[in-house]
Amino acid sequence: MGMTIAEKIIAAAAGVESVKPGDIHTVTLDRMMSNDGTTHLTIDMYHQQLDHPAIADSKKLVFIVDHNVPADNPKTAATHKKMRDFAREHQIDFWEGKGVCHQIMMEHYVRPGELIFGADSHTCTYGALGAFGTGVGCTDFLYGMVTGTSWLLVPETVKFNLTGKLRKGVYPRDLMLHIIGQIGANGVNYQVMEFSGEGAKTLSVNDRMVLCNLAVEAGAKSAIFEADEIALSWLKDHGRQPKQVFTSDEDAHYICEYTFNLDDIQPVVARPDFVDDVIPAAQACGTKIDEAFVGSCNNGRIDELRVAARLLKGRQVADTVRFLIVPASNDVYLQALEEGLMETFMEAGAIVMNANCSVCWGSCQGVIGENEVLISTGTRNFKGRAGHPSSKVYLASAATVTASAIKGFIATEDQL
Amino acid sequence: MGMTIAEKIIAAAAGVESVKPGDIHTVTLDRMMSNDGTTHLTIDMYHQQLDHPAIADSKKLVFIVDHNVPADNPKTAATHKKMRDFAREHQIDFWEGKGVCHQIMMEHYVRPGELIFGADSHTCTYGALGAFGTGVGCTDFLYGMVTGTSWLLVPETVKFNLTGKLRKGVYPRDLMLHIIGQIGANGVNYQVMEFSGEGAKTLSVNDRMVLCNLAVEAGAKSAIFEADEIALSWLKDHGRQPKQVFTSDEDAHYICEYTFNLDDIQPVVARPDFVDDVIPAAQACGTKIDEAFVGSCNNGRIDELRVAARLLKGRQVADTVRFLIVPASNDVYLQALEEGLMETFMEAGAIVMNANCSVCWGSCQGVIGENEVLISTGTRNFKGRAGHPSSKVYLASAATVTASAIKGFIATEDQL
Repeated sequence: MGMTIAEKIIAAAAGVESVKPGDIHTVTLDRMMSNDGTTHLTIDMYHQQLDHPAIADSKKLVFIVDHNVPADNPKTAATHKKMRDFAREHQIDFWEGKGVCHQIMMEHYVRPGELIFGADSHTCTYGALGAFGTGVGCTDFLYGMVTGTSWLLVPETVKFNLTGKLRKGVYPRDLMLHIIGQIGANGVNYQVMEFSGEGAKTLSVNDRMVLCNLAVEAGAKSAIFEADEIALSWLKDHGRQPKQVFTSDEDAHYICEYTFNLDDIQPVVARPDFVDDVIPAAQACGTKIDEAFVGSCNNGRIDELRVAARLLKGRQVADTVRFLIVPASNDVYLQALEEGLMETFMEAGAIVMNANCSVCWGSCQGVIGENEVLISTGTRNFKGRAGHPSSKVYLASAATVTASAIKGFIATEDQL
Repeated sequence: MGMTIAEKIIAAAAGVESVKPGDIHTVTLDRMMSNDGTTHLTIDMYHQQLDHPAIADSKKLVFIVDHNVPADNPKTAATHKKMRDFAREHQIDFWEGKGVCHQIMMEHYVRPGELIFGADSHTCTYGALGAFGTGVGCTDFLYGMVTGTSWLLVPETVKFNLTGKLRKGVYPRDLMLHIIGQIGANGVNYQVMEFSGEGAKTLSVNDRMVLCNLAVEAGAKSAIFEADEIALSWLKDHGRQPKQVFTSDEDAHYICEYTFNLDDIQPVVARPDFVDDVIPAAQACGTKIDEAFVGSCNNGRIDELRVAARLLKGRQVADTVRFLIVPASNDVYLQALEEGLMETFMEAGAIVMNANCSVCWGSCQGVIGENEVLISTGTRNFKGRAGHPSSKVYLASAATVTASAIKGFIATEDQL
């Protein structure tokens, strides 16, 4: 029996010829990333619960402060200081205030064929470059940090065969929300979403990041694209070489297959409070909003900022709306500066923030109050995600978010 | 007996021929500003403690959300919502996320000869345009809001005779910190600092704002410059005309006079935890810092951003320092974009934030942790002002702050 890309990565990391779903293997990790969500807990356990702790290979570790940055209170300042001091002591790569962890990882670290643990659920993003990324809790992270390894239950793989091409005015974000709406928030629990087909060839690395990043919202253990010429060209532009390029065998086993025709996708929104409560955006139009957000590891790259700028040019944000625009990294920020997008945002009355998780994380920037409504390119919309328990979050593309910010109520770009 | 500028403004507002220090008059207010520090309390009192409340003249009111913006938690989101809803209901000018209140007021409202109450201590800033601005608490603000008037005890005026001209590498910020160091934090309690002399003519409106803004740190009720040709030209550029231009009479009474020769001023810092513990910056050099901040109503204008950019160009922020750069308003932000300063900041590794009070206020952005040290162009450095009670704040000019951010320890620009 052949293997899928994910299975081949795991087999290589386990040092075995082949693996199959349901096997448990000890794997050597290629890279481990942790952010300020939990790193301080990992460090506490490292010091308090281990005898003579030592880090297996500090060169494989990356610590990134991105959730509450700059610190919003003395408590988060303390967690940052703990990370910073530990990183310096152990020569761990440390990033602070430079961008959202997954964006930093994609820009600077991830290579095809790698097996990467991240102490953040959206680590599955790295599949856009043909790597197996998965989120772990801080106890698993600690184990990996001190041993360089972990056990891994080989997941089943689900094939997502993409056909066609997204129409103008429809975005990868719409596609992935549509998929999640179809398969449900538990649709691929502990499974790998493998995206392939001719439709996949129409998607850039940015587009693939959008899809892989949100895979965890359907319960996926990971998500992956084959590292094709599009991915390898992107990788080369970023000065890196693959670890190894894997392709799924013809006779690889998939637990099931879905086909999605990109031609059929239309703008959608995920309604509060469930990511899989996805409806055509047209059906939500007219819903009054209080805040809008373009940013996050899912949708805060130059592609999305360009969309926002194109729609904002010569228009104004509604005076009943706070519109936060947050580049996913400083590289994105600098590119936006170079293209003059920031002027457009500022002239339109948007609020441009530093590169960080911002209101997607709902704990330090742009938090919404009682009964307020946010339309967001962030990752999640469950109850209270962006602030007060009674507040509501709609998830949509940068185009729908921007059109809504201009109108003051949910709207699609063709309504501008 | 003649009158000072401040006395003439009060007399006009009281509708009397003349006033003298110690008199209590009922004055008609020209303008009232309130920010998200206390407006929600004012609104609560308005609804709960008054029978049939009504606003005297909503056109004189300005509400500005600048302290915790965008909202950092559901509680501040609620205070903003209260302000927003009240402002809409009563047709009150409302600004949110556009800049620090005093900067907005200077750019859009303040006129020479006006008497302005602001529910913020640094309302004395407006003296840079020959207006009498003073900070009030929310009870006084409420009284003014519903009556259009207030009682006012006429303050004594202290003359600050400025001679000479600041040398290259010395800034108005150094001058004002030096003055406060000399006269002490209670040096001019409930008095007006009137700046005059040939040295005053060398200062731009921005420079005068730096001086007037910090006057309250020496206990001043207000601070003022004569609205001379420099002020009137600035005002015209901003599309406004004076209410009335007052000059102090030759025989006006001053409770005392100080003379400061600008030639003698050198770069200084105010040491933790007292604004009047001012020493030559050279004596503080070498002190390790964790964070640096250029921004605030005192020192976040284009002048200071240009200084920061000049020093950062081709250099990098020390990797042990978080350097926050926060324009005082969106107008400042747009000007900085136009001049390419933002690229310089980002390329140097600084964190550019949205226009707001930021870490000067120490409650939502860039808060520092236990024992951490901040060097800041903010307004205050008392115990715990920027975060943890054990943290420390040095106040300095944008040049000294930027040089320190590059070096990783307190340094002056000539050490770069």
